[in-house]
Amino acid sequence: MSAPKKVVLAYSGGLDTSIILKWLQTEYGCEVVTFTADLGQGEELEPARNKAEMLGIRPENIHIEDIREEFVRDFVFPMFRANAQYEGLYLLGTSIARPLISKRLIEIAEETGADAVAHGATGKGNDQVRFELAAYALNPDIKVIAPWREWDLTSRNRLLEFAEAHQIPIAKDKRGEAPFSVDANLLHTSSEGKVLEDPAEMAPDYVYQRTVNPEDAPDTPEYIEIAFEKGDAVAINGQAMSPATLLTALNDYGRRHGIGRLDLVEGRFVGMKSRGIYETPGGTILLEAHRGIESITMDRGAMHLKDQLMPQYAELIYNGFWYSPEREMLQAAIDKSQEHVTGTVRVRLFKGLASTVGRWSDQSLYSEEHVTFEDDAGAYDQKDAAGFIKLNALRLRLLAMRDRRAK
Amino acid sequence: MSAPKKVVLAYSGGLDTSIILKWLQTEYGCEVVTFTADLGQGEELEPARNKAEMLGIRPENIHIEDIREEFVRDFVFPMFRANAQYEGLYLLGTSIARPLISKRLIEIAEETGADAVAHGATGKGNDQVRFELAAYALNPDIKVIAPWREWDLTSRNRLLEFAEAHQIPIAKDKRGEAPFSVDANLLHTSSEGKVLEDPAEMAPDYVYQRTVNPEDAPDTPEYIEIAFEKGDAVAINGQAMSPATLLTALNDYGRRHGIGRLDLVEGRFVGMKSRGIYETPGGTILLEAHRGIESITMDRGAMHLKDQLMPQYAELIYNGFWYSPEREMLQAAIDKSQEHVTGTVRVRLFKGLASTVGRWSDQSLYSEEHVTFEDDAGAYDQKDAAGFIKLNALRLRLLAMRDRRAK
Amino acid sequence: MSAPKKVVLAYSGGLDTSIILKWLQTEYGCEVVTFTADLGQGEELEPARNKAEMLGIRPENIHIEDIREEFVRDFVFPMFRANAQYEGLYLLGTSIARPLISKRLIEIAEETGADAVAHGATGKGNDQVRFELAAYALNPDIKVIAPWREWDLTSRNRLLEFAEAHQIPIAKDKRGEAPFSVDANLLHTSSEGKVLEDPAEMAPDYVYQRTVNPEDAPDTPEYIEIAFEKGDAVAINGQAMSPATLLTALNDYGRRHGIGRLDLVEGRFVGMKSRGIYETPGGTILLEAHRGIESITMDRGAMHLKDQLMPQYAELIYNGFWYSPEREMLQAAIDKSQEHVTGTVRVRLFKGLASTVGRWSDQSLYSEEHVTFEDDAGAYDQKDAAGFIKLNALRLRLLAMRDRRAK
Amino acid sequence: MSAPKKVVLAYSGGLDTSIILKWLQTEYGCEVVTFTADLGQGEELEPARNKAEMLGIRPENIHIEDIREEFVRDFVFPMFRANAQYEGLYLLGTSIARPLISKRLIEIAEETGADAVAHGATGKGNDQVRFELAAYALNPDIKVIAPWREWDLTSRNRLLEFAEAHQIPIAKDKRGEAPFSVDANLLHTSSEGKVLEDPAEMAPDYVYQRTVNPEDAPDTPEYIEIAFEKGDAVAINGQAMSPATLLTALNDYGRRHGIGRLDLVEGRFVGMKSRGIYETPGGTILLEAHRGIESITMDRGAMHLKDQLMPQYAELIYNGFWYSPEREMLQAAIDKSQEHVTGTVRVRLFKGLASTVGRWSDQSLYSEEHVTFEDDAGAYDQKDAAGFIKLNALRLRLLAMRDRRAK
Repeated sequence: MSAPKKVVLAYSGGLDTSIILKWLQTEYGCEVVTFTADLGQGEELEPARNKAEMLGIRPENIHIEDIREEFVRDFVFPMFRANAQYEGLYLLGTSIARPLISKRLIEIAEETGADAVAHGATGKGNDQVRFELAAYALNPDIKVIAPWREWDLTSRNRLLEFAEAHQIPIAKDKRGEAPFSVDANLLHTSSEGKVLEDPAEMAPDYVYQRTVNPEDAPDTPEYIEIAFEKGDAVAINGQAMSPATLLTALNDYGRRHGIGRLDLVEGRFVGMKSRGIYETPGGTILLEAHRGIESITMDRGAMHLKDQLMPQYAELIYNGFWYSPEREMLQAAIDKSQEHVTGTVRVRLFKGLASTVGRWSDQSLYSEEHVTFEDDAGAYDQKDAAGFIKLNALRLRLLAMRDRRAK
Repeated sequence: MSAPKKVVLAYSGGLDTSIILKWLQTEYGCEVVTFTADLGQGEELEPARNKAEMLGIRPENIHIEDIREEFVRDFVFPMFRANAQYEGLYLLGTSIARPLISKRLIEIAEETGADAVAHGATGKGNDQVRFELAAYALNPDIKVIAPWREWDLTSRNRLLEFAEAHQIPIAKDKRGEAPFSVDANLLHTSSEGKVLEDPAEMAPDYVYQRTVNPEDAPDTPEYIEIAFEKGDAVAINGQAMSPATLLTALNDYGRRHGIGRLDLVEGRFVGMKSRGIYETPGGTILLEAHRGIESITMDRGAMHLKDQLMPQYAELIYNGFWYSPEREMLQAAIDKSQEHVTGTVRVRLFKGLASTVGRWSDQSLYSEEHVTFEDDAGAYDQKDAAGFIKLNALRLRLLAMRDRRAK
Repeated sequence: MSAPKKVVLAYSGGLDTSIILKWLQTEYGCEVVTFTADLGQGEELEPARNKAEMLGIRPENIHIEDIREEFVRDFVFPMFRANAQYEGLYLLGTSIARPLISKRLIEIAEETGADAVAHGATGKGNDQVRFELAAYALNPDIKVIAPWREWDLTSRNRLLEFAEAHQIPIAKDKRGEAPFSVDANLLHTSSEGKVLEDPAEMAPDYVYQRTVNPEDAPDTPEYIEIAFEKGDAVAINGQAMSPATLLTALNDYGRRHGIGRLDLVEGRFVGMKSRGIYETPGGTILLEAHRGIESITMDRGAMHLKDQLMPQYAELIYNGFWYSPEREMLQAAIDKSQEHVTGTVRVRLFKGLASTVGRWSDQSLYSEEHVTFEDDAGAYDQKDAAGFIKLNALRLRLLAMRDRRAK
Repeated sequence: MSAPKKVVLAYSGGLDTSIILKWLQTEYGCEVVTFTADLGQGEELEPARNKAEMLGIRPENIHIEDIREEFVRDFVFPMFRANAQYEGLYLLGTSIARPLISKRLIEIAEETGADAVAHGATGKGNDQVRFELAAYALNPDIKVIAPWREWDLTSRNRLLEFAEAHQIPIAKDKRGEAPFSVDANLLHTSSEGKVLEDPAEMAPDYVYQRTVNPEDAPDTPEYIEIAFEKGDAVAINGQAMSPATLLTALNDYGRRHGIGRLDLVEGRFVGMKSRGIYETPGGTILLEAHRGIESITMDRGAMHLKDQLMPQYAELIYNGFWYSPEREMLQAAIDKSQEHVTGTVRVRLFKGLASTVGRWSDQSLYSEEHVTFEDDAGAYDQKDAAGFIKLNALRLRLLAMRDRRAK
């Protein structure tokens, strides 16, 4: 790889990416463009502008954007159509944000004539893979710089020395090491490392940042109604909302009721297992409600196929293959299945648990006429079941006859 | 089908199966053998003996058995190795009991020289299919009698008239119609029909029988430790237990903490959707804990394959194909995956929620040495990630180059 | 089911469906509408008109249509995008025609105000299922009449007696029983039953009707070039053709070279195994060529997913679920994968074998620059492979470390 | 990685691995142990011994073994139970040999106290991955040396210079470059590169080494009978044979009839597409016959599941994951399915094509009694089909009713 001339850096404004910024300037002597996105992580963005300027970035090279709506509409919602859960449980909150960040990095690189992008993910995690696969998929010639894999700033002390040597301000609380590492966006907050590294040990309560402890949640349940159109949530309690607004509102509900905490050991794409604490308050409610509306509006054949495809779909997102033909194929199938997933679900929120308690839709496939224990007026002829069973049994009977012959 | 001469009836001792018993005698003039099983449904079995005798069944034709251990060991536990959930949520509590009942019906038929078996499932549900597919798979020549599909006792009144005409005692509370229909065994209780038939309406609280309302559960969490060997739970809080004993204990924990309630609309094999209220207190805890122990002891490749196979496995059980070659193939794969699923999980029980909060095992694949944020002493070379990503990206880059050519 | 008033009959003009026609008139006293389709079965249709008129069908109730283009364009080609083969081998020639016939039956029923449709498939085969599932999926209230399941004309003699009693002309060669049963359309000819019923016995050569014996095929290979656009064949040897014209031309090539014979025992949906002789001359060439063009234009990730989905897709078509949400979901995924499947394949035809020997495309993903054994000018850095392998191996090494610990 | 002290080299005795041998000695100064295996590649092994001795390898460090029986019994046959074909066509002849070679390398390393293994695969191909994943899976601490990824002998000239400088004899025909690269074993011969690099160009006939041109094959078909037990071939024409003997015999049949040629463009695990010419004469016959015996002895449910799992199974082997838990899970399922795959298949061999023409088994599930077009004496009640179809149709009708409501 020849040396980069101009690099777009995914810049949070924090200490680590500030060090990266400076390191790119000193190591490669290249022009740095910063990209700072509001993905709902709950931090002010303007300080990032000031800091970038202070580190010598020209104003026209500072890009700060609120991409929350795009994030939820084009990434979170399509993924939730699939009921995606990695390894049965993880709602992929970090994974789903990466392809969007890479998309904007590549777009800004093209707008600014940059030949490289850089990110602050380490060499042990999944995020480097997600950032880079997305970047290469969108621009096959882009250079990708991952300073954590390259530099020799391999201890906290050396990082701080580098920061001091380059006049990068260090907040007081960054002097010591953080007790764990955090990633956050509108969908979730993840915490990893340090105090969490022994999976036998219960996570200390101060790790949780997005949700109240279920023990402290209200003592009475709250009920909300979530309306869906073609698989996407569109309203809460009758009030239509944009995707990001709706997820923000669900997060508030979830936070209050202690919903969406997950303590998970997962298999990383790079081959090791890691332990994470995830908080996905709104997403957890959304998954429950989405399953609820599917349960009356989606045909059994479609649902079972979708359930079967889900683990691979979730794995693709987890591993960073959002921009891959196979993810797009699965998305086409999933989206096809959602055409009638329209209606409303009532969910109870209580002490950490979101539970569907009612659902209705003018697209419903539930037929009380057919299922009723009462007289069904001929809608269903119970005698049909005899033939249904006999023919489903035929191959099993032929097997049994063979076994009997063998004796 | 020629007329049956001797029929083994799945007999609960209740009104409905007593009517069936008498109807078999009168309709077919055949000898009836009763089979009454303790599957953990929580009812006394001896009254069934008395009632059968009263209805004219000879003592040697009355079979009453406690099959709880076989149920949990050979059916429930193998299924939980798969983390089986039908349509994403249902723990298959009714489905998994049917093949065992059929197995015993067929065995008793062979022991007693009966040429037919009979059950009390209706023509609209899944249970008829499960009973009969299992029966045919185990004895291809068996006759199966499903009175609900045959007789003309199509209303509550006619049933009661038939009962009265044949001196079948009718308990006072059976005069009126039950507000919903119940099935129970050691794994779960299901409730369906009548007051539950509108899926928009919240289930009334009196429907729940196996669990306290989460609102009434203890205000402080309880922690338990569940030990597993090769995928099966073997001990709670250090105390070894037989399968049925262990599930009974988990049910007690679950009941107390309001765990395992599910309000579901599901797609029946016979083609319609139905709404059920399921309570699976112990099973819900068991699933959570099993996932917990798998998370540190099962390789990612194995786990992802297993997750992908699960929906079909669950569907097979739901649809009644327990005794099918494809279920056995899947079971072989699943059991293979469980060889190292040994260790202990700590689970928090609180207000309806069972949550893994710690797990440990001498079979653990979790390597703190590899994953640590601290110095890993060379266990992992972050530079390897660069090549890993480059080659994973290559096909995506080739795709992007093609797209670029096309422009 | 109340009695039908007006029935649309899938009418071939042959003896069997003529008997059905008359039986519908006499049994139900209903008005009969005939539908006779040219699906490429190689028979004149006008005799069917005369015969229908002779049997008393009013001219406006006689529907004769050439639906070959629709058949290939909307059914055969979409299916071939999937490389569908049932049980690894069968190209589904009969299965794929049924949904189209049912579609026209239902449309004609709606145009003519008929309340029922009828077909001549027996109660043992798959075709009854395919006809009827398609009919019900397109019109949930339609009545379906399957005379072979209903009537008492259960022997050849009784059928002939019925025909004679109703002045239905019987061709001389129909007096005796046919030595096997045939179904044909533009995609294939299938032969079943009678002389073919012992699967140990080689099929007599006279069974084959669409292809020369490979021994009699030309002694020198012939090469053709098939061009594809978005997964569908569009030209042969540079000459653009409509779908049906193209398949007809491929059939001629295949017939001449003895290509596409298959002697198969398959598992029917109704539960038994049956043996069929299939001839799919053009389809066999098309499958080979389609795989050939996919091999250079389709990404590995997409192809592997598609291969994995194919067996379920083929099973759905075989079982008659063309008009099902899950088939449509799979079709959406498959069609998505075909967007770049454009280019040309050279196929050698020789003595029963069609073999891809060359393929090229401006959508090709094959990069000689990357794969070359020669100097690749830096397109690929072999050192990347080291990291790629190390991280792919990591989980395997962690497993091996565990195994070692256990010793 | 610290420097290796003692290396086990997969040594063919050819020029390339002789250069590697010498390079290991000079580059690392380490002791070299050679392993030369007879996998059926059709070369004498003793010259490899002489050559190794000449290059200074001590006699006790020279390991020459005939592992053909182990190869076929423990690798080829288990794989053929799955009907494994990568990307629909490739019989995985190279892929399946690698794990066995690695297994022996690791075993010899353990026996001889070596701390490293080395192979002669390049950095662009799949074989490096297969060798190394297998090696790491069997010994997590092994060092792996892949000289082609490390050294600077990056052109033919430099290789020859190195050989000359180190007195490695160069056969005359190795002076020029080979027009393509070959790998061979008892299952197949593959040819790649150079003259084959343009996938549009037909492979020249001299590339084929294991099979006659179908045009030159006998003008009359030959028929053979292959007997199977539990999925593995055990006899030809009634003569029992060991696995390797049997495959050798099938290779002779296949060679004579020009069977098993494949011209394929495939997606490599390392991300690029490559074109190969494969000859798998015996394997192609074996696959056809195995499908033939499965067709009468394997239940539909089992077969469809197996077909669905096959692509992933084939991908795992292709990618080098033979020693992975997920391959073992799939193998457990596949092996389970083969318990009754016992019987005999008659195959016609003619001009490049192997075709099943008959099959019989006392484990057969084919029931002429059920399938017959003649009177079946009540084995099958056609009326059962009505109920079977009605209930299979119910969900489709409910969908159609919804669609109708929407209009």
